[in-house]
Amino acid sequence: MTIERRKLRWNGWGWVDAPDILGDRAAGVWTWMSETMGVKPLPSTPAKALSDITLPEVRLSSDIIKKLSGLLDARRVMTDDYERAFHARGKSYHDLVHLRAGRVDTAPDAVVYPASADEVLALVRLAEDERIALIPFGGGSSVVGGVTAEVGKGQAGAVTLDTTLMNQVLEIDEEAFVARAQSGIYGPQLEEALQAEGFTLGHYPQSFEFSTLGGWIAPRSAGQQSNMYGKAEKWVVSTELATPQGMWSTEGFPGSAAGPQLTDIVAGSEGVLGVITEAAFKLHRAPEVKDYRGYVFLDFPAGVAATRELMQSGVHTAMIRLSDAAETRSFRALEAGGTAPDPSEQFCLMLVGLEGDRATVDTALERSRAIIENHGGMHLGEGPGEIWYRSRFLTPYLRDPMMDRGLGVETLETATRWSNIIHLHEVTSNAIADALESNPGVPGARGAVMAHISHSYTDGASLYFTFTFVRDLDREVDQWLVLKRAASDAIVANGGTISHHHGVGTDHMPWIDREKGPISTAILKAIKDQVDPMGVLNPGKLIG
Amino acid sequence: MTIERRKLRWNGWGWVDAPDILGDRAAGVWTWMSETMGVKPLPSTPAKALSDITLPEVRLSSDIIKKLSGLLDARRVMTDDYERAFHARGKSYHDLVHLRAGRVDTAPDAVVYPASADEVLALVRLAEDERIALIPFGGGSSVVGGVTAEVGKGQAGAVTLDTTLMNQVLEIDEEAFVARAQSGIYGPQLEEALQAEGFTLGHYPQSFEFSTLGGWIAPRSAGQQSNMYGKAEKWVVSTELATPQGMWSTEGFPGSAAGPQLTDIVAGSEGVLGVITEAAFKLHRAPEVKDYRGYVFLDFPAGVAATRELMQSGVHTAMIRLSDAAETRSFRALEAGGTAPDPSEQFCLMLVGLEGDRATVDTALERSRAIIENHGGMHLGEGPGEIWYRSRFLTPYLRDPMMDRGLGVETLETATRWSNIIHLHEVTSNAIADALESNPGVPGARGAVMAHISHSYTDGASLYFTFTFVRDLDREVDQWLVLKRAASDAIVANGGTISHHHGVGTDHMPWIDREKGPISTAILKAIKDQVDPMGVLNPGKLIG
Repeated sequence: MTIERRKLRWNGWGWVDAPDILGDRAAGVWTWMSETMGVKPLPSTPAKALSDITLPEVRLSSDIIKKLSGLLDARRVMTDDYERAFHARGKSYHDLVHLRAGRVDTAPDAVVYPASADEVLALVRLAEDERIALIPFGGGSSVVGGVTAEVGKGQAGAVTLDTTLMNQVLEIDEEAFVARAQSGIYGPQLEEALQAEGFTLGHYPQSFEFSTLGGWIAPRSAGQQSNMYGKAEKWVVSTELATPQGMWSTEGFPGSAAGPQLTDIVAGSEGVLGVITEAAFKLHRAPEVKDYRGYVFLDFPAGVAATRELMQSGVHTAMIRLSDAAETRSFRALEAGGTAPDPSEQFCLMLVGLEGDRATVDTALERSRAIIENHGGMHLGEGPGEIWYRSRFLTPYLRDPMMDRGLGVETLETATRWSNIIHLHEVTSNAIADALESNPGVPGARGAVMAHISHSYTDGASLYFTFTFVRDLDREVDQWLVLKRAASDAIVANGGTISHHHGVGTDHMPWIDREKGPISTAILKAIKDQVDPMGVLNPGKLIG
Repeated sequence: MTIERRKLRWNGWGWVDAPDILGDRAAGVWTWMSETMGVKPLPSTPAKALSDITLPEVRLSSDIIKKLSGLLDARRVMTDDYERAFHARGKSYHDLVHLRAGRVDTAPDAVVYPASADEVLALVRLAEDERIALIPFGGGSSVVGGVTAEVGKGQAGAVTLDTTLMNQVLEIDEEAFVARAQSGIYGPQLEEALQAEGFTLGHYPQSFEFSTLGGWIAPRSAGQQSNMYGKAEKWVVSTELATPQGMWSTEGFPGSAAGPQLTDIVAGSEGVLGVITEAAFKLHRAPEVKDYRGYVFLDFPAGVAATRELMQSGVHTAMIRLSDAAETRSFRALEAGGTAPDPSEQFCLMLVGLEGDRATVDTALERSRAIIENHGGMHLGEGPGEIWYRSRFLTPYLRDPMMDRGLGVETLETATRWSNIIHLHEVTSNAIADALESNPGVPGARGAVMAHISHSYTDGASLYFTFTFVRDLDREVDQWLVLKRAASDAIVANGGTISHHHGVGTDHMPWIDREKGPISTAILKAIKDQVDPMGVLNPGKLIG
């Protein structure tokens, strides 16, 4: 493996030995959280240790385990507690609630680490023959239940297929600005190889360090700089998958009219149509300059108007991140170690990231600043940009210590047209706030909801919501469900998509059919039945 | 109808009363063609008049015709010779060979003109119930047999559904830069409505005047300025189709991760999954400036290298059109009224079109000129750009008078990665040249093959081939088949797609499965069976 599993937290985010990201701000931040959330003192709610948990028995017969070992070798077929627990779920709040409480009922019976497409195909065929659920797993950073080791009806058990031994860059076509790599390569390893040749894919989701190429394509992931480098479905050129029907290669032309392009249905297929074994993708020249800086607006609508104009004027931005007033206040409090601004402040922080050669960035800087100032935005310099850039992969580390203190934090995201952004922001924020108020966790506690625009297009943008709350320790899952439902119902009823870049997984299943409509749903089902008639590939996700 | 069908040539290109595009160059051009193609004098091979042709009998019962009239009204159900002949085929060379010879065996039994999505849905349901082939038809400018009125197995006859009464712009969302229109609106009418509000779709295929919004989406069409405005699959936001399963609306979010995006399979569906009744699409601000100018390179590879660098450097070009040496010589001969340059000349003409606001165009002009000159390109000024821009929709008019004189002209296109462009250009040119030599039409006659790059991407480009030849009047279709096969086999065997923007239709059926592979082919078939189990929608196209 490129990252040894035991160096990672099986029931939390990132490296086991990661330092406290709050550093010397910790005391102030926890006091602030305790006060604003109305719980004094914050309780101690540590996660259960794996040694205190009994895992469900392995359902697969020793005969099947032998067959798995025969296809690979015994060292790459794991049935120990750590591997099973690590692969039981992804990294959502919902997942952690289960894992921290020691509920690992979704642990796979075995975890396999194939090293080649041939091995993956053999595993898919065995799963098909023996009716075993096969769950593709890259970095396992899904936050929608995309890697939960569920078992379909009549299936003998679940095997999680960890792709991370398949981590080679296979080709860099310097003339065509296209590269090809195996699906299990992690972000840092991939970028290192590309940048050594002067290129970049530019796909940096918050999970960058712990997520893989295949894991980016399967749920249509977006990097933080997607304004410039595109979502996965935009940069993917072609894919190769192992399916019960054999190896499936999809188109790889720069442009084509040879019928519908089926690479487009691999993006978003979330492992239910096959295991992505490799992919080709578009490259950019590694940027000569990165310029990240902050601006502040008097209110959210002014910032939205500026973001829209930046996109529609064709200014080359890599990232525009516009926080609403609540998120802006929260950032400032976190940054100041718990000294919070006045709750009535409506300032909205915008971070603009520019990347490229010197001339492109200079032009973009001049044009973006003019547009922003025209909408009343005030330039804050590079300070806020530097702070964000430095901590851009670290925020998830804050969740574990919050959960150790009886607090919960959940995120969800959507996208809609510019003409609906303000409305959708308002109704979704209100729906979450109302649900938080009705589910305070403990009497008198107060949750908070905040949001930002993180990925923009000429026709609209995404909205990313974060909400924090005091956990109702007697009914954690129910509390989460109520909050999730309130947000998701509001989103789907008001013109938003159920997910902009997290995917469907298990968690968005209740809304996907409503969003897609009966004919699209039936088409997806027909495709699934054609490719995977036994339903062994990642059951319970995407297609009901 | 927005264009009265009788004002259009049923067996040729465009307006019946279009002037001769050669004007006072005519005599010189015909002499040049006669000499270079080795046929003196050029024969007279006029097309048959419709009045001299007997159409096949209407296969549909009067009961069915009555039912059709009941769904619409009798005035919008046509069974006269002109309507049937007009809708028998599209506008490819292959189509014209049949039509000019009076072979209209593929004439539909009736032509219907629905005026609303409800009427289209009723027609689809009737076709389904009565097992009648239903052929969606916009402008009818397909050049791959996409609108040929074929009848599937066991079907009672064929009805062509002409969408051009559905020609309303339904919405212009000025905030989101998105508009929505009915599918049957012609290019000029659509652009007029959009430009009146300061916007453009920017989709100008050569067929612009005679093709429709739905007809652009169905085969993944590309406009001449696709570098800036994108192919249809890029600018389409969402679609609505009438299918045997009911009305089907596809997603319309600026970005989403809610499973695969099925709008992507409507693009390229060529009417086999439903009749597109309306679509939403992205807008751009109508350009303030259009700057089209010419450059000349010493040879094709130098021009290719410059085109590649223009794309990979992110210069805002609307169009880069790079002709190979043969096409450059041919243009010069046509322009000079038949005075041809020396056949050994290797100059290659590049036309670069820039569009946008003044500042964007100025920057692009400076940057593009620097890159081009760095690759040895010489600036020719705006003259060549003006000539091209003036005649950008007119070239197809040259085909009819050529066909009146025993000559044939066919075009086909592909796309591949930059690293394969020179190779694919060479092998395809050679394959066509060899086939032309073996099929000279008459002894001693000489065909010619030429090509240009017309649509470019960061990872590759399209290649558009034109070839001219003396027709073998005793075996016109066979001669065409041999030429088409030679080109298509070479393309598919050498890493090209069978079509970059014309689509599959009937003509590319022999190659589509090879290109897609068995799993993709089975998936497309499964989708078709789910949506149109009786196979009444556009039979014989795309899905075998």
